[in-house]
Amino acid sequence: MIIDCHGHYTTAPAAHTQWRESQLEAFRAGRQAPPYPAISDDEIRESIEANQLRMLRERGADMTIFSPRASAMGHHEGDERVSVEWSRACNDLIARVVGLFPGTFIGVCQLPQSPGADLKASIAELERCVLELGFVGCNLSPDPSGGRWTSPPLTGQYWYPIYEKMIELGVPAMVHVSASANPVFHATGAHYINADTTAFMQFIQGDLFADFPGLRLVIPHGGGAVPYHWGRYRGLADMLNKPPLSEHVMRNVFFDTCVYHQPGIDLLVNVIDTGNILFGSEMVGAVRGIDPQTGYYFDDTKRYIDAAGLSEADMAKVYAGNARRVYPRLDAALRARGL
Amino acid sequence: MIIDCHGHYTTAPAAHTQWRESQLEAFRAGRQAPPYPAISDDEIRESIEANQLRMLRERGADMTIFSPRASAMGHHEGDERVSVEWSRACNDLIARVVGLFPGTFIGVCQLPQSPGADLKASIAELERCVLELGFVGCNLSPDPSGGRWTSPPLTGQYWYPIYEKMIELGVPAMVHVSASANPVFHATGAHYINADTTAFMQFIQGDLFADFPGLRLVIPHGGGAVPYHWGRYRGLADMLNKPPLSEHVMRNVFFDTCVYHQPGIDLLVNVIDTGNILFGSEMVGAVRGIDPQTGYYFDDTKRYIDAAGLSEADMAKVYAGNARRVYPRLDAALRARGL
Repeated sequence: MIIDCHGHYTTAPAAHTQWRESQLEAFRAGRQAPPYPAISDDEIRESIEANQLRMLRERGADMTIFSPRASAMGHHEGDERVSVEWSRACNDLIARVVGLFPGTFIGVCQLPQSPGADLKASIAELERCVLELGFVGCNLSPDPSGGRWTSPPLTGQYWYPIYEKMIELGVPAMVHVSASANPVFHATGAHYINADTTAFMQFIQGDLFADFPGLRLVIPHGGGAVPYHWGRYRGLADMLNKPPLSEHVMRNVFFDTCVYHQPGIDLLVNVIDTGNILFGSEMVGAVRGIDPQTGYYFDDTKRYIDAAGLSEADMAKVYAGNARRVYPRLDAALRARGL
Repeated sequence: MIIDCHGHYTTAPAAHTQWRESQLEAFRAGRQAPPYPAISDDEIRESIEANQLRMLRERGADMTIFSPRASAMGHHEGDERVSVEWSRACNDLIARVVGLFPGTFIGVCQLPQSPGADLKASIAELERCVLELGFVGCNLSPDPSGGRWTSPPLTGQYWYPIYEKMIELGVPAMVHVSASANPVFHATGAHYINADTTAFMQFIQGDLFADFPGLRLVIPHGGGAVPYHWGRYRGLADMLNKPPLSEHVMRNVFFDTCVYHQPGIDLLVNVIDTGNILFGSEMVGAVRGIDPQTGYYFDDTKRYIDAAGLSEADMAKVYAGNARRVYPRLDAALRARGL
């Protein structure tokens, strides 16, 4: 079984995206948002069958842990009420995808974070998505300001209530920012990768997992810059008088495989314990083209994993075992189906 | 010959660092800074001989392109006048090191950047350092706000006057931020690496090198996250309808080798053309300890290069040829010595 831990609904029907625009327009004009549009099952089916489902099959994966489009979360837009409304709309749409393709997709929610707001609304939405919609995790943004970086580090007390709820519900978070409202940061080329790197370094500086030994966080995009600079991070942990990373951070932190060339994946599986690596592609996502050097899609990360020389046992962990361990509600759902 | 392109005077005499504290205290109190202290040649000699010079010799390198301590540039502290005063003090101290060890060190200056200020003072200081002190380059911060990221992208018109002066003088810049005033960003573990990644992506998005074909920029710390995510960057260039990176960016952009473990260096020399890689260690700098896995200093990057399986010709480029090409004033100085 091959589980892709990182897929976003980047191909959502146009009416959904258009409603977001109307919602923000209404906010700016001080009006209520228009009613959410009717979107038929057929429209949803088509948007998935022609894209994610087709590619999953072509590439030989079985299922995707699926969440709303990350770059469209836009926590910095509008206010908290707008963010709540938009998050519910996005998460409900994910639930419909899962309902239509229950063997292939399982849901992860976006949270109605908003710069300066506390996390009560996020906790409520997480609870709703897990308990009512059957979701198995959430995407948590370390920077709801969209590239202004005004929130405290992820190790700060500010974040503790959502961690407590995650542990209570038995779900992990993927640490994932949204679009950048700061012109210095390209979203997928800088802001995403920087956020991954930043979060990891915060975990080294802090002692978050002493407070939350059961917390599980996935850092996407292959861990940002971290595996490439693994010596730097081991050395910095040492300089900060922290325990080795294997104890201090890596019992709780996992990296996906969204690294779009063979040498990157080779490095990832070489320096990071395979128990900490979850197969992911972010397909259809950040990089959509075909690599002229290989003739295959840049984001067809399964090819790189298959060629990375892993043992059968390691391969099984990366492709499914780790995901089932990190997302226990996914594991339970699969077991209930006899898988 | 082995030239380390990335060394900072992290071991400057205490009186220098204390003066900075007094200077900032005076600024906050609305007073003029006290006079800069007398620092003897012996103090400078000692601070270098016991540290950088000893390590250079132990590790088998010949010289270092040397600049003021990057984390202490602190462009976000005080105002532009304070930044000018501090930059002159720091650069003058580098000139004294070079004067005492002319065969081993050659100077690169910090610039008196200040958030919101234009680059006139930086241009003047660059000119002074190159024409009067014999420096061969500068460190240019893409974020003088110290982690608030309030400046325009490096491809913006705001930066053009300094690029014009660099080209006129025949000097490159290393793109290097200073300390982080934003608690989310650890300086050496997040802010530095993020700045490297961010700058590279800005160069992809823009067309800076069409306007300045002669501009040369060194991105330190192994290019941040870039080589590890080389597929992502090739793919993003393609999505943005830019020419291949080899033409669009890599005629003008170079990476150093400040990557503190063997697999990282192996990836760097595997994916990046050796014509774009300059030996660097950032010694004595970000990571000062000994790697328990190898028994050697994390930042002894020469060991990794030596073990990376490069040809003699490639090795010669990485160790000296590229530095002499990127820093033509260094090359001229070496030629004048018959080297």
